[in-house]
Amino acid sequence: MTTPHQPLEQRETYVVGVDFGTLSGRALVVRVSDGAELGTATHDYPHGVLEDRLPASGRALPPEWALQVPQDYRDVLRHAVPAAVAAAGVDPADVVGIATDFTACTMVPTLADGTPLSEVPGLEDRPHAYVKLWKHHAAQAQADRINRLAEERGEAWLPRYGGLISSEWEFAKGLQVYEEDRDLYDRMQRWVEAADWIVWQLCGTYVRNACTAGYKGILQSGRYPGPDYLDELAPGFSSFVPDKLDQPVGQLGERAGTLTAEAAAWTGLPAGIAVAVGNVDAHVTAPAAQAVDAGQMVAIMGTSTCHVMSADVLREVPGMCGVVDGGIVAGSWGYEAGQSGVGDIFGWFTRTSVPPSYVDAAAAAGESVHEHLTRLASAQEVGEHGLVALDWHSGNRSVLVDHELSGLVVGQTLATRPEDVYRALLEATAFGTRVIVETFRDSGVPVDELVVAGGLARNHLLMQVYADVTRLPLSLIDSEQGPALGSAIHAAVAAGAYPDVPTAAKAMGRVRRGVFVPDEARAQRYDALFAEYVALHDHFGRGNPTMRRLKAIRRDAVQARRDREVARA
Amino acid sequence: MTTPHQPLEQRETYVVGVDFGTLSGRALVVRVSDGAELGTATHDYPHGVLEDRLPASGRALPPEWALQVPQDYRDVLRHAVPAAVAAAGVDPADVVGIATDFTACTMVPTLADGTPLSEVPGLEDRPHAYVKLWKHHAAQAQADRINRLAEERGEAWLPRYGGLISSEWEFAKGLQVYEEDRDLYDRMQRWVEAADWIVWQLCGTYVRNACTAGYKGILQSGRYPGPDYLDELAPGFSSFVPDKLDQPVGQLGERAGTLTAEAAAWTGLPAGIAVAVGNVDAHVTAPAAQAVDAGQMVAIMGTSTCHVMSADVLREVPGMCGVVDGGIVAGSWGYEAGQSGVGDIFGWFTRTSVPPSYVDAAAAAGESVHEHLTRLASAQEVGEHGLVALDWHSGNRSVLVDHELSGLVVGQTLATRPEDVYRALLEATAFGTRVIVETFRDSGVPVDELVVAGGLARNHLLMQVYADVTRLPLSLIDSEQGPALGSAIHAAVAAGAYPDVPTAAKAMGRVRRGVFVPDEARAQRYDALFAEYVALHDHFGRGNPTMRRLKAIRRDAVQARRDREVARA
Repeated sequence: MTTPHQPLEQRETYVVGVDFGTLSGRALVVRVSDGAELGTATHDYPHGVLEDRLPASGRALPPEWALQVPQDYRDVLRHAVPAAVAAAGVDPADVVGIATDFTACTMVPTLADGTPLSEVPGLEDRPHAYVKLWKHHAAQAQADRINRLAEERGEAWLPRYGGLISSEWEFAKGLQVYEEDRDLYDRMQRWVEAADWIVWQLCGTYVRNACTAGYKGILQSGRYPGPDYLDELAPGFSSFVPDKLDQPVGQLGERAGTLTAEAAAWTGLPAGIAVAVGNVDAHVTAPAAQAVDAGQMVAIMGTSTCHVMSADVLREVPGMCGVVDGGIVAGSWGYEAGQSGVGDIFGWFTRTSVPPSYVDAAAAAGESVHEHLTRLASAQEVGEHGLVALDWHSGNRSVLVDHELSGLVVGQTLATRPEDVYRALLEATAFGTRVIVETFRDSGVPVDELVVAGGLARNHLLMQVYADVTRLPLSLIDSEQGPALGSAIHAAVAAGAYPDVPTAAKAMGRVRRGVFVPDEARAQRYDALFAEYVALHDHFGRGNPTMRRLKAIRRDAVQARRDREVARA
Repeated sequence: MTTPHQPLEQRETYVVGVDFGTLSGRALVVRVSDGAELGTATHDYPHGVLEDRLPASGRALPPEWALQVPQDYRDVLRHAVPAAVAAAGVDPADVVGIATDFTACTMVPTLADGTPLSEVPGLEDRPHAYVKLWKHHAAQAQADRINRLAEERGEAWLPRYGGLISSEWEFAKGLQVYEEDRDLYDRMQRWVEAADWIVWQLCGTYVRNACTAGYKGILQSGRYPGPDYLDELAPGFSSFVPDKLDQPVGQLGERAGTLTAEAAAWTGLPAGIAVAVGNVDAHVTAPAAQAVDAGQMVAIMGTSTCHVMSADVLREVPGMCGVVDGGIVAGSWGYEAGQSGVGDIFGWFTRTSVPPSYVDAAAAAGESVHEHLTRLASAQEVGEHGLVALDWHSGNRSVLVDHELSGLVVGQTLATRPEDVYRALLEATAFGTRVIVETFRDSGVPVDELVVAGGLARNHLLMQVYADVTRLPLSLIDSEQGPALGSAIHAAVAAGAYPDVPTAAKAMGRVRRGVFVPDEARAQRYDALFAEYVALHDHFGRGNPTMRRLKAIRRDAVQARRDREVARA
């Protein structure tokens, strides 16, 4: 050949990572050689989250429901991916792989070919035909029975989930369909994690990813909960596993298949390139932050915090969300824990509890209210506000696993200022993380480093508090697009550019190590406050059901008021 | 005589009540026959409260000090009394008596003739020469020793004060002078309650009133703490009682003497009219509200709440402020209790914890922030906010008697709104009152009615909450000037217009009975919340010293920051 061309070994290649969030999807184009982020684009889901009614008929949904529309996900592939490639200015022909991560547990009921039931003519008006988003919380009754029976029978898989299966997960949501719309359940041929459904759309092959199969699908040591257990749970439900759920499992970073012609047309990418096995937004962030070794706990800190960590050992950690073989990186045990409320607590406080004089002062200083309170709170010595708070405004995910818990602030006087309470709330979430870290340690899974991703990493006071409270060095992911970068890393491995995810993470991941280190004097002061936090934690979380009773009183009072209003009307 | 004149039996007579508060004094002219309030005037103390420095030299005062200048009190007699008489449009010649009430325990160190030491040439620059206002809190160390030793020795008077003598009272403040300025102590010939000092100024006679002698001066069954005890407390201090304190005691409503020519000149009133024995602002309010019978608990509700109640029986009530023979009405046992923070907690919340959108909405509706929050909170069913609070932002006076306690709110979620917390704080103070009422009942001193005086009576939601929480009918004093009216009643008795205070109270007092009555359905809902309050009350107030430790942590942290700042400077 006489045509001049760049030698293959010098030619740069690219991958695309796509992060499917709660309200939008984001595509990111990344250079395979070094992880450089070259272009990104997002696409908002046109239907958002369906919480009140169905789109076609306007049919009302019961409380606690949260649905989505699958076409919104395909639209991300059609709009955000080409836009990101264009923004990156790379030749689509040089893209060698694509990978995705998704919210979880988000479930799509489909036919055998992957067609969502909500797209089957005649089923548009059936609520159970739609995607059940992770935060669909209407299967609590089913989850309660799942847990009670599993505990009674001493099911071996239960301790792998810290002792509690969530109402958000595959079995609770599936059992809800089974019990509330049997006809639709019978027409449902597959019960598919959205993380896998989107991969199925890209490559035409249905492969379950090891992460959600383990964390959300109760797949442990190659087995799902057995037929005896399921039939005792609900007669006939034993067919759920073989009929709707079971499917070959792919390890994270493996190739699920290659891009179909149809998906190539949607995305503008070459048909035949590698499509990676599906993944979850939190878990995929670990390699993006080069945090795939034992002892590196990744905290993805936003409205809530998700903790993921790999380890060589299998241990049963009380109150963890789960431990899964290959759940984060193939070949390691992946651990997950969480705090149900973090950034949303700070946001709630700044919205509802900060007076006009502070809001005005923040505006005058060109600061957000968060920045203003943070600056004021930074001037304090540890403990100077005299407060301790419990960070349970959205309940407690780890290690108490109790959504009936609530928030608490103790120590207020007439001298207590907004920045005092704000700082106490920041600290409360740090204490919550320390409880998790210590529970892991006490269970034989040591934590040596906190690697922080997510929007809250921008608050330097918060980061320093976490370092001081936990006595751990804090590293920060060096990317604004952690999940999408993590997906891109998986795409590169699926494309064969690296032998495995840890190797790819080392080349493509981005982290600033030890940005915040603990100060021993402050750490000692925090020990005294942490002792108070633990005392409150155990009193309200373990000993005394005050908060649970307050929620019951509240529910009863709301019902009484509604009854009265109805009677009056 | 040929001069025409109104027959004596038809001629109206008048009395003047003067209420000496923390920052000003108020005079009120009242018709003897029916208690009609005819004219009033106030005079602000020119020196206010001395907390930072002395007026003459600018000498700095230590923390926790609070002093006043006696001439400010005389100025009230000289300005407010004539102004009130002028406003009333009555002939001063028809005024037959004057009576006063004062903050307590407020102490004046004097010579044998009543001259305040701060007016003795050469002593102007001695802090201990000035009036120690009730809220002078620098004698805590002395109070601690008084209590410890009394408990060790099993002093019989200690249970009459619920087990604790306050740092605000006569012995603690006197011991502070003894130990910190012995020379001045030696020159001090009398240690006089301001309530008695002002009477001494009016009539030239020093009579101790039974109220402060009992509640603040530890005079029980005619005896002060004995010399053995006092010498063990501080060698030589046994002379405090005979040398500085002891004096004839007058019952409330008795005539202390008659108006001197000098005081007649100050006030414009006729010399020789009756001057009543001194009294205290809270206690004098009971007859003003016609609440002098057993079972009628008067709650004077402002920034804090003071509870006073008469009874025929002597009982030892745990955590009460005191029980005194004739402490409210001669011939009955007078009980006192209190809540250290009430209106100031609501004020603190509206100032520090209400966002701009609420402040704007209140302004748009022409409401204060208090009114706005009250209106929003009124729409709720009992328990709907899901919260319980502890009202200890200023510590707890009754029944725990612990100023190291602090505030607490439990049950907050991301759905919690400002009106929810506001209502929880209102309810917390009502629960605090219920604890006091039940403690009295359990000790054999039943409470049948709450009679409310003070500014908070204007909040109808608050009043209804108190009725529902306590299951007591609520009566409201029907006067804006409760203490001054109460003093006027005592003046009428001292002048011989009525045989005793209860009879005068019936004719001259003003109350609206049963304005708020308990609703049984709401009361039952409150029982559930009160059970949670009591559990928190006992956990944090009796079992677990979390709050005390938080205050210690705070003090230590503040000191550390100051040390650091000094080191840096």
